[in-house]
Amino acid sequence: MADYGNGTSPVERLIGMMARLPGLGPRSARRAVLTMIRRRDVLLDPLAKALDEVARTVRECDLCGNIASGPLCEVCTSPERRAGEICVVESVADLWAMERGGMFNGRYHVLGGVLSALDGIGPEQLRIPSLLARAGDGEVSEVILALNATIDGQTTAHYIADQLAPLGIRVTSLAQGVPIGGELDYLDDGTIGAALLARRTL
Amino acid sequence: MADYGNGTSPVERLIGMMARLPGLGPRSARRAVLTMIRRRDVLLDPLAKALDEVARTVRECDLCGNIASGPLCEVCTSPERRAGEICVVESVADLWAMERGGMFNGRYHVLGGVLSALDGIGPEQLRIPSLLARAGDGEVSEVILALNATIDGQTTAHYIADQLAPLGIRVTSLAQGVPIGGELDYLDDGTIGAALLARRTL
Repeated sequence: MADYGNGTSPVERLIGMMARLPGLGPRSARRAVLTMIRRRDVLLDPLAKALDEVARTVRECDLCGNIASGPLCEVCTSPERRAGEICVVESVADLWAMERGGMFNGRYHVLGGVLSALDGIGPEQLRIPSLLARAGDGEVSEVILALNATIDGQTTAHYIADQLAPLGIRVTSLAQGVPIGGELDYLDDGTIGAALLARRTL
Repeated sequence: MADYGNGTSPVERLIGMMARLPGLGPRSARRAVLTMIRRRDVLLDPLAKALDEVARTVRECDLCGNIASGPLCEVCTSPERRAGEICVVESVADLWAMERGGMFNGRYHVLGGVLSALDGIGPEQLRIPSLLARAGDGEVSEVILALNATIDGQTTAHYIADQLAPLGIRVTSLAQGVPIGGELDYLDDGTIGAALLARRTL
């Protein structure tokens, strides 16, 4: 028997693979695949084309690790982005989040993770050596560490800051504090403490 | 600018289309696509191949409406499935659910929806005419209505039962009652009432 979501026909293989995506399980993968097949003109065929195009064209930017369709990504090739400012992020998802923020006009460096003794991830497993090389090329004046406010993220930020110190360039990190629209009553104590320490005169 | 999940590059198009699948939104579609790209050997490339294969090969069974890779589906072509019993289901997902149950050894008829005056869906919009033709071919001895226990599902079941009555074949529907493992305290009153009315001597 085939095509019931637990075997090896094309439909079953597709369901099995969809189920491995984050946010989907076997049940929702089945639902998604059935919806695709039912609406093949607007979902299945365009999705197959789009996925094929991405698989053929998408690669990593040689310089920063962002998603690119050539050797360099659109940020690294854009003449409007300041080459002197490098924003260091953990992942491409974080790079996109920064871009949605719409306030940064420099370039990026995607680490591809954070240091983790537990998982055996050291500087060599991340894009840290290439970051140090980039930062030391004489053109860079500031490195902004936009790493997640987790233990591993902050450990990584401090490690990078230590490595960059001899270069004598400015190393900054994102401000910590109350998020826009945030209510104190729902914030964790650490955030409130950090926001108090970093308080500003109005 | 491109590739941040809100424009027209291949990656953005893929995200936009993934976001239209049930169970995924813009945020989870972004996450899924980034995961695919990060793990291209095990996710992106095989998924692109599987989706392409499904888009090229999958079609509807001419007889029952199930998913098929030829004119007829695997159930309709299997010599081991009894042609005299037709199980009527609303969707391919329900057909798969019946197959997972593993107790039915006849064939199917997928309606493609249920009657709905509100949505303007009459018998002609569903696979009801072809069901009546199939049921009247002299080979069919029983039609099992496995429609969902919703108002529209039951309305559809009664409509089909009325249409089939002149043919003099057996028309049955799934039993209603307490689900296996079900606790009375958590069941709705309608189910408990139906289970009481359909009680059996032990």
